[in-house]
Amino acid sequence: MRVVKSRSKGYRAERELVHTLWRLGFAVMRAPASGARIKKAEYPDVVAIMKGRVAVFEVKSRASSSGLYIELEQIKKLIDFAERAGGTPYIAIKIPHKEWKFIKVSKEGIKESKTYKVSKEDIEKAPGISGVLADLGLMKTLTDYIRESDT
Amino acid sequence: MRVVKSRSKGYRAERELVHTLWRLGFAVMRAPASGARIKKAEYPDVVAIMKGRVAVFEVKSRASSSGLYIELEQIKKLIDFAERAGGTPYIAIKIPHKEWKFIKVSKEGIKESKTYKVSKEDIEKAPGISGVLADLGLMKTLTDYIRESDT
Repeated sequence: MRVVKSRSKGYRAERELVHTLWRLGFAVMRAPASGARIKKAEYPDVVAIMKGRVAVFEVKSRASSSGLYIELEQIKKLIDFAERAGGTPYIAIKIPHKEWKFIKVSKEGIKESKTYKVSKEDIEKAPGISGVLADLGLMKTLTDYIRESDT
Repeated sequence: MRVVKSRSKGYRAERELVHTLWRLGFAVMRAPASGARIKKAEYPDVVAIMKGRVAVFEVKSRASSSGLYIELEQIKKLIDFAERAGGTPYIAIKIPHKEWKFIKVSKEGIKESKTYKVSKEDIEKAPGISGVLADLGLMKTLTDYIRESDT
């Protein structure tokens, strides 16, 4: 039961991220759902593309802003996918009633261990969606988005 | 039974296309499977990205090289997705024991009807994967690929 709950929470977070990115103007695709027949691990959770700029996301939903550990294999696949695409890999973290946080990952950040650590401080200092747009050189998009939301 | 057979044939074709594109160096993602809970229609069947160049595919598997009709709504979504991504939309057609054929679609090609027609002649004259790489400005990749396959 607990697994099911946590899985559906994860889906909800993914869906929310997909909608946010779509509203910003991205073409967005979610990975096939995990399951016996399809290995989700091959794909990032979400891929977003705008004007040839690419962001790939591993989505994590957390009850509180404590740190977390992610399997190194998953992070390596995320980085590999981003490299092939010519894009930027992120861990996207959603904590209820707070903004999304986006932690950019890189090969250099990988330590000699089986897990990739994201500390509480990493999450706190991570930027929101504007950081992703800035990384991708798409800041104008956000300005348009805010203007649109205001009217 | 017939539906199930045809659906699994479709999956097989998609998987084959994913593998081909992955071997060429693309980051590739398949859409979530169709089903009651996930509307596949929102996404193209396959998205491939390399160095910021993007190709999106609607995959069709056919027993013979006769023409086919595709729902216009599907084509429109394919084009919309490609426009957002800054990429190129294709119908990818697989006929057993033949090469993949890639038909580029465009808004201009949309006629006033409920379906998008792909004629037998359209399929016959359509290029293979090299056409896609040429469109995306990635021909060097194919040369490397062939060289690698030769050795």
